[in-house]
Amino acid sequence: MKTRKRSNRDIALQSAATLFLTQGFQVTSMDDIVAHSGVSKTNIYYHFNSKDDLLRVIVDQLISHYEQRIQHVLSNSGASVLDKLERLCIILHENAGEHDYLGGCPFLTLYTQIAPEASEVRASIKRFFERQLHAIEGLLADGIARQEIRAELPVQSTAALLLSSIEGALFLAQAADKPFVLQEIFPALATMLK
Amino acid sequence: MKTRKRSNRDIALQSAATLFLTQGFQVTSMDDIVAHSGVSKTNIYYHFNSKDDLLRVIVDQLISHYEQRIQHVLSNSGASVLDKLERLCIILHENAGEHDYLGGCPFLTLYTQIAPEASEVRASIKRFFERQLHAIEGLLADGIARQEIRAELPVQSTAALLLSSIEGALFLAQAADKPFVLQEIFPALATMLK
Repeated sequence: MKTRKRSNRDIALQSAATLFLTQGFQVTSMDDIVAHSGVSKTNIYYHFNSKDDLLRVIVDQLISHYEQRIQHVLSNSGASVLDKLERLCIILHENAGEHDYLGGCPFLTLYTQIAPEASEVRASIKRFFERQLHAIEGLLADGIARQEIRAELPVQSTAALLLSSIEGALFLAQAADKPFVLQEIFPALATMLK
Repeated sequence: MKTRKRSNRDIALQSAATLFLTQGFQVTSMDDIVAHSGVSKTNIYYHFNSKDDLLRVIVDQLISHYEQRIQHVLSNSGASVLDKLERLCIILHENAGEHDYLGGCPFLTLYTQIAPEASEVRASIKRFFERQLHAIEGLLADGIARQEIRAELPVQSTAALLLSSIEGALFLAQAADKPFVLQEIFPALATMLK
């Protein structure tokens, strides 16, 4: 275990992310972040101009964190396409399940709370989903080429279905109080794809 | 067309629902509802104790509205199971697509914005999703009995997958700016279920 001392900037970011995701972005004030993090307001404002600025950095960090983990699963050339999909469901479940995000998925939670005017953050999340859709399309095309997946499946439509079902399952894990829904849907997905 | 005069109570409810769903529950004040509806604050407080009270009534109305429409589709004994599923996707798309709800689906939008303390509203939404899950399980069991759907599909897992993909698609229609994603996933669903 590395025991690197976290900077005040990191501590403030972590507190803000926790509060935005579990209490809500709109209801969290800079004073709440000061109280939760123990970092002074002067110090927080030294690093960040505003709550919107904190949100922007948090969304960029979340995107980078998730993309690294997803990329790690997809680049495992020894695994079958269904193994990769199952592994994706597991890591997404673990990430969301550790916490108690208001809407299950962190991107869904933040996206749904921010006003349409916050166009930069919304555009970042939109591009993130577009990249994931594209990655899943590649995975499915690969699975069809390797004859692991039914050749008659329409790739774009199936990729949209997979991404939709993962997002929906992360939300329902929270809203329908079914914490294991993402694992629960995998057997159906596996049967349907083969 | 009936031209029934709407009561001040209905007008205030409609304004509050529009603001909660398109601007956000937390950022909407009673003053905003007064300004948007044109109903006086005294009159609104005559009908509702608080913003939370408005939210509770709005969620109950939404649940009742959606359940009626879903029940109408499911009770059509002449339609095949796949026809019913396609019809469900179309009406859910139309309902969400007419508006610009922050999170696509109205239930997802409200659920994700309200604090964990708002336990009554969260419990209503949870029960709504549980009932939908149960209805989809019945639809699938019916489809298997009629040999319209592959018999080897696990019913509970597939129902969870369908509800997840519908919720996720309503969200992505908004967040990934893919307004037709719910129609787009239907061909994949139909291929996979048969």
